[in-house]
This record gives sequence, C-alpha cells and structure tokens, in this order.
Amino acid sequence: MSSADKEFVKEIARRDEDPSQWYVDVIRKAELADYTPVRGCMAIRPYGYAIWELMQAGLDRRIKETGHQNAYFPVFIPESLLQKEADHVEGFAPEVAWVTHGGNEELTERLVVRPTSEAIICAMYAKWIQSYRDLPVLINQWANVVRWEKVTRPFLRTTEFLWQEGHTAHRTSEEAQEEVMRMLEVYRDFVENDMAIPVVPGRKTEREKFAGAHATYSIEALMQDGKALQAGTSHNLAQHFARVFDITFLDEDGQLKYVYQTSWGVTTRLVGALILVHGDDRGLKLPPRIAPIQVVIVPIAPKKARETVLAKASELEARLRNAGFRVHLDDREEYSPGYKYNHWELRGVPLRLEIGPRDIENNQVVLVRRDNGEKLFAGIDGLEEALPGVLDAIQRDMLAAARKFLDENSRPAADMAEMEKIITEKRGFVYAWWCGDEACELEVKERMSATIRNIPLDQQAARQKAPAAAKCVHCGKPAAEVAVFARAY
Amino acid sequence: MSSADKEFVKEIARRDEDPSQWYVDVIRKAELADYTPVRGCMAIRPYGYAIWELMQAGLDRRIKETGHQNAYFPVFIPESLLQKEADHVEGFAPEVAWVTHGGNEELTERLVVRPTSEAIICAMYAKWIQSYRDLPVLINQWANVVRWEKVTRPFLRTTEFLWQEGHTAHRTSEEAQEEVMRMLEVYRDFVENDMAIPVVPGRKTEREKFAGAHATYSIEALMQDGKALQAGTSHNLAQHFARVFDITFLDEDGQLKYVYQTSWGVTTRLVGALILVHGDDRGLKLPPRIAPIQVVIVPIAPKKARETVLAKASELEARLRNAGFRVHLDDREEYSPGYKYNHWELRGVPLRLEIGPRDIENNQVVLVRRDNGEKLFAGIDGLEEALPGVLDAIQRDMLAAARKFLDENSRPAADMAEMEKIITEKRGFVYAWWCGDEACELEVKERMSATIRNIPLDQQAARQKAPAAAKCVHCGKPAAEVAVFARAY
Repeated sequence: MSSADKEFVKEIARRDEDPSQWYVDVIRKAELADYTPVRGCMAIRPYGYAIWELMQAGLDRRIKETGHQNAYFPVFIPESLLQKEADHVEGFAPEVAWVTHGGNEELTERLVVRPTSEAIICAMYAKWIQSYRDLPVLINQWANVVRWEKVTRPFLRTTEFLWQEGHTAHRTSEEAQEEVMRMLEVYRDFVENDMAIPVVPGRKTEREKFAGAHATYSIEALMQDGKALQAGTSHNLAQHFARVFDITFLDEDGQLKYVYQTSWGVTTRLVGALILVHGDDRGLKLPPRIAPIQVVIVPIAPKKARETVLAKASELEARLRNAGFRVHLDDREEYSPGYKYNHWELRGVPLRLEIGPRDIENNQVVLVRRDNGEKLFAGIDGLEEALPGVLDAIQRDMLAAARKFLDENSRPAADMAEMEKIITEKRGFVYAWWCGDEACELEVKERMSATIRNIPLDQQAARQKAPAAAKCVHCGKPAAEVAVFARAY
Repeated sequence: MSSADKEFVKEIARRDEDPSQWYVDVIRKAELADYTPVRGCMAIRPYGYAIWELMQAGLDRRIKETGHQNAYFPVFIPESLLQKEADHVEGFAPEVAWVTHGGNEELTERLVVRPTSEAIICAMYAKWIQSYRDLPVLINQWANVVRWEKVTRPFLRTTEFLWQEGHTAHRTSEEAQEEVMRMLEVYRDFVENDMAIPVVPGRKTEREKFAGAHATYSIEALMQDGKALQAGTSHNLAQHFARVFDITFLDEDGQLKYVYQTSWGVTTRLVGALILVHGDDRGLKLPPRIAPIQVVIVPIAPKKARETVLAKASELEARLRNAGFRVHLDDREEYSPGYKYNHWELRGVPLRLEIGPRDIENNQVVLVRRDNGEKLFAGIDGLEEALPGVLDAIQRDMLAAARKFLDENSRPAADMAEMEKIITEKRGFVYAWWCGDEACELEVKERMSATIRNIPLDQQAARQKAPAAAKCVHCGKPAAEVAVFARAY
C-alpha cells in the first residue's frame, strides 16, 4: 500500500469493510451533499448539484426531442383532490407532509406537499382538454417532491427529493402505451449512455406497481453491493384518473370520451446509483458525459520551474475550455501534487492531466484515467483532437465494466433453496420463472427480503439467464414468464 | 376598426378600459398560466414556462459567469431556525405556510415551507466555512418559495412562486458590498437587455428593506398603467445572520471572525412585468431574446397552391431552425390566415413570416413586426442573414419605446401638493428630494399610497429629474438625496 493509499484509508471507509459508511463518506468528503437540521432532508452541495444539472440537461434534451414541453404546477395539493383516486390516496396518504396553517390562520382544508402531481395535474387537464384537437398533451415538470420516509439515506431515499415527472394524455389506449414505452426507452438510453449504468427494462408486478396505475414499467440497475436499485419508472394510468377527475374530450366521431394517461419520472436518487455502481475505495468515479470537471490539470513544478509550468498549464486550460471541455486547473500552492491526486480522484474526475518541466521540454503531457488508473502520454500540440477519444474510451469502458458486473451477478434459480442461497450468499439479480401468482411473489419476499424487480421486456434474453424448465420458482407450477428477483434499495 | 380587431375585442378586454381584466385575459388566452384549485397558486402552462426557461437561461449564464455555482437546500425550515434572526422572523412569520404533520404523526417541531432560505443556508454555512481559504462562498439556488399572501394576482403576487436566490459569504465588508452591487448590475443588464425593460437601480429605505438586511438595493421598473414594479433585489446582510448563526472563519491573521453576507433574487413576477410593460390591446409582445417562438411562419395558400406553398414553408422552417432561430410553422388547415395572425399576435411572437404563391414566384417573403406592425419584404435566399438584423431591431426598439415611456412618466415634485396631483392624476415615477426622515416617507404613503421605490444610485441623473431646490418634499427641510416615489404592485 502506497502512502497515498494510507492517507486515503483514513479519509473514507473501505467499501468492502463498511459499505454504508463508505457511501456516506464519499458523499460528504467529495462534497456532493450534507445532512441538514431538517429530518431526512439533505443539502445538495455545488459539486453534487453540478452533476444533477448535467443529468437534467441530458434528460431534458431527450424529453424535448420526443415532443414534450415543460410546465409548472403548484407544490400544494388540497386533501380532497388527493383523495379522489382510491388506490392513489391509499398509496400516498401515509407518507405526506401536511400543511395545516397559512400565516396565522388554520386552513379550512388541509394541503399536502406534493408527493407526486397526478392529482393537481389531472384537475388542470380536465379544464384544458376539450377536443381531440387538444390531444396529445405532452407535459413534463422539474420539481421538488416530499415523501415522509421513516428511514432515509442521502440521495437514495430522502424526505424531499428533486425529480422530473412527465404527465401525458392521449386519445387511445395504444397511443398511451406507446408513450409509456417511449419514455422507458428514453430513460434506458440516458442511464446507460450518459451515466454508464446498464439496466434491465421490464414490467412491475401488480403488487409493486404505482398507486393508481394500470401498469408500471421500470429500469432496474444493480449496485456493486449486489442490491438492486429502481432507476426510473413509466406508468400506464389507462383511464383510472380520467374517470375520477372527469377528463373528457369530444372525439372526431362526436362522442365524449375519457383520455388515456401516462406518467413517468426519475429522481436525484440516480446520483446515489452513480456512487454505488462506479465508486471504489478511492471515492467517486464519474463518466465523462456527466462529470462537472472532465479533465483536471495538475502542474508538477519544482520551485524554480513554477512560473514556466503554471504559464503552460494556464494556456492548456484556456485551450481546452475553448474547445468545449469542462476543465479545471488546480493551481493551489499550498498542496502537493499527491494531495491533489487524491482530492480529484475522490471527486471522480475522469481524467487527470499532469504537466511538469520535463513534459514541456518533450512537448507532451501525462494523462491518467480515473476508471482504470491507466497512464497515457499525449502531445501538447494535438491535445484537443486526442482528448475526445480518451474520454469516449472511459465512457465506453465504464459501461462495459458495469455490464460485466451485471452479467456476472445475474444467476438462475430453479427453486426456493437455490434462490435463497444466491440471495443470502451472493445477492445480485436472480432470474427465475414465476407463475404470476401474488402468493409466490410474497413468499419469496417474506423468506428472503427479495422482491420481483420486474418482468424483463426482453423475455428471450431473460430465458437464457433462467433455468431451462419453465416452472415457478416457488410453487413449481408451469410459468409463462421469467422475473428478476433481488434485494433492493 | 378592421374585422380582425373586432374579433379581438371580444377575446380580451381593452387595456385602457379595464386593465385588470386585460392582464388576466392576456395570461389566460395566451396560455401563459391558469388558476388552480389551490388558493393563490397558479399553474404555469408550457408557453409561459418556456418564457421562464429562457429567462432562467439568460440569468443562469450571467450568474455563473460572475463565479457562482448552483446548489439546493431543503424546502422546509424548522421553526427554531427561522426564529433566530429577530427582524427576519418578524418579517416572514406572518406569511408562511406551516407543516405540522408528517405522515400520520404530529411533528415535535413545526416546519415552515421556505419563504426565503437565509435561515437554512446560514445553518449550513456555519458547518462549511472554517477558514479564510473557504471564502468567498458564492452559491445560487433555483427554487420554489411560498408566502401566504392575502391578495394574489398571477405572476405578480402568488402564494407559491419560482425564483433564484443567491447567498454569498465574504471575508470583508467591502467584498460583500461589491458583490451586492455586482448582482444588482447583473439584474439590470438582464432585465434591460434581454427583457427590454428599463429600470432604475437604487437603495431601499430602512422601512422598505429586506427583513434582516443591513441594506437592500433594487431595480425598479414602470408599468404602462403608471405603477412601479420591483424587478429584483440585492441585499447586504452585513454580519446580522453570521452573528446569530455563528458563521465564523479563522482569518489569515489567526483571528476568528464573522463572515459578511449577501443575498439577491428575482422571481417569476418578472413574467408579469413583461406583460404590463410591453402588452397592448392585441395581447402579449415579447422581446426576441426571451421569445419561445421568434418567428412564426404562416402559409397563405389558395387550395390549388396549398402543396407548393406548404413545401416551401416547411423548407424555410427547417432552414431557419438549423440556423439557430426559434421558429414555428403554423400549418393548421382548419384556421384562416387571419385567425392565425391574431393567435400569434396574442402570444406576442416578435416576427410573422407570411408566404404565398406570389411570394414564391418573386423569391421573397413578407415579414411583419409584432412591436410596431411594420411590414418588410425579404429575399428567400439570404433569409438567415437578414433575420438577425430584424430581430435585433425589434429588441432595440422595444427597449427604446419602454425607455421613452419611462422618461415621459418621470416627473419632479417640489411639495406634497405637486406630488399628490401627479400620483393621483398621472401616476408614474415622481422624483423628489427627501430628508431621510421616516416620518416624511410615511406621510406620503398614508396620504397617497405611494412609497419610496428607491434612492437612485445615479444621483446626478436623479437630480436632473428632480426640482432644483434640495428641500424635502414633505417637511421642506434641506435634503441630501433624491428619491423615486410611486404607487407600486
């Protein structure tokens, strides 16, 4: 163990020894977020928020390219509105924050701080939608939401979190289902290609679907500790909300009809997924596409060469910034290069650029990849042309490494004994046949705290990871579908 | 009056006859926002939100260029934190929403939904700031805030609104004051150059300053109805909050010192200012820089030429979009060109591009400016090169028109009789000398409901608009400063 390593062990817990402490250490030492005096609520610090802003930009672009527009609805929802849809209120009422007073007066009707916005948005859609010409309505909202959670962890489960929630209305059931699938694919594309996190898209079971939905679809990711994390959901609401909120339109045939609706969302918990999928004992590892700093320049200068090296480093910083890279020059005098290496590795900066007097003589720089520690030399002259290839390779290799881990930790289970052995000893995704009976699903949950994450859309691929015999993992009866079981965040 | 005008009179109230109804009509018919079932809260519809997004982009760029980073703090503030700074709690406690229950349990300490975030942010800064090396802290937050207002109007005064709030901490009083001025100038630059709304920057009186601030500065705009609107504020908090929240740092000289702080913000009420400054009887007028659609293409085609014209219009739309313009082709078959003119004029689109068979023959299009109705011809071939000049001219002329109105409605008043005559008969800005005594300020307010908007920073310019004799408008005693009085939103 080098001295730099030793220094680090002091700073953050080892991931294999104390994964919970490691997770919190990374968040606090990398200055992603901090605890606050408000129970279950975190403050997202500038570096963590810059990651979220890049995630927002990648998602917002995709959401707009698929024809949606942003809007904003009230943070408060009157109790009577929340109560209209029976399943919805049952699902959310136990976990909302209640506003009972405004100024010095008690309210005649209590308000909830939105846990999700179906109710208030449906109330508005009932006013706005009159004719088939008004359809589809394709609206997204970036907002804060509040769910009164009993146990919280920064990013993964917080009382308040940030998210986007799409809410659409359509003329036909088919159009709504197409929308649900389109947005699930947008999420898959974003999470895999921008965040370098491979996912399994699939359908949630009846038990696990969104409160008030006809069907829920999710993308499920696997953390390095073997636990699953739901990374995004897309709901087909059918006409459930339209009927109770009376959202009707006059169709071309002169008939008054209820709309079909969808909703879909991803949240700041994705930042938690980033840490848990890519992080290591040295801290965070960021894929270049969502890294606030893609390249950090560390000048390595003995005292007498300091001015020359700093001048060259500044020149490089300006050149790279002009070329569109997110670059930072760490020119602090009070810290050694070794300290700076640790500092930026902890923060997950994908590429370190070292430059010293010898490098300048040789007209080159040293590049060190955060993902695999690889050291490269690059000429100073063509640096702008060389960097995109290096950053792309990091992005690609990080996805490949995470996919390899996902594949190696996806195992078949033919019966409950096999399932239990995997879940307790190895965790990961367990591919098993399921008859569709809720009793079998519950039995697995009660015995080993594993749930059906989803029923993969790509059943052909799922079958290849499942046992050959199509028999339910619990009851042994013939089963038509393969489900993915796991313990989850 | 043309038939199109008549049609319009039916749709929105006339501004001179019923300005309040006109304002609401523009908001609802242009689909900027709508009332909701939540008292005092509006829904911002996609077109209104697209304007806000462009305003956010213009502000966010300037905020980052001046060295600030975004972050996010909890929406809830524990009652005990809000109560720490005496003036602050006195100012805000009467107008906050109280959360008293989470899930099914009553909270041991009530939470307020943030009316502003000084208290929670100071609690964090006390943890984060240790050394002079940690300073300055330059953080901004985009968020929703809630103030329990008795009387509300869409955009201008709503229970919930959206804003950005900057919160900075500095080593010295001088640095803090520089920051306060820097951000006031950022606001002036943005509001004048992007929104085409001229403003008067100045200092608020002790009476009108922010609850808890040492000094408040504002930019004040004048609406077409002669009422003032505070368009942005920048506060010097001195060490008021640092002392009660114990935000200290170890300075280079080894001494423990309190930081100096600032905060500054602008809100969605600026969208209301847009309407009130630029709107006319036909609806909204948007400056090109913040117009979601800068150019709307209206094809004018007799039935047999329809396909040819639509093909050419589509080609133009693609060309202009590729060139970076925000362009929309209105190819709806069911509406006449006249209907479409009204539709897009109501929504304030700066430039209409008409194209018909004759235009195609002549290889030209007709351009119609929303701001002054001017009609121009432009060749189809060089359109991308011609449009920036036209849009810039609209932007410039809109600011010039608003500045002319501001100048014509800025009047001197030497005594209370003059002041009252102007305020009751003409409104507008009244430039008058003020001795600095709060009693004189109050007397004006009680007699004519006019307040000191601010004491202009540019006193030299202010004096030229004020009476020659430097005597207080109320008490007649010698006065050192000229203040701007007005009735305000």
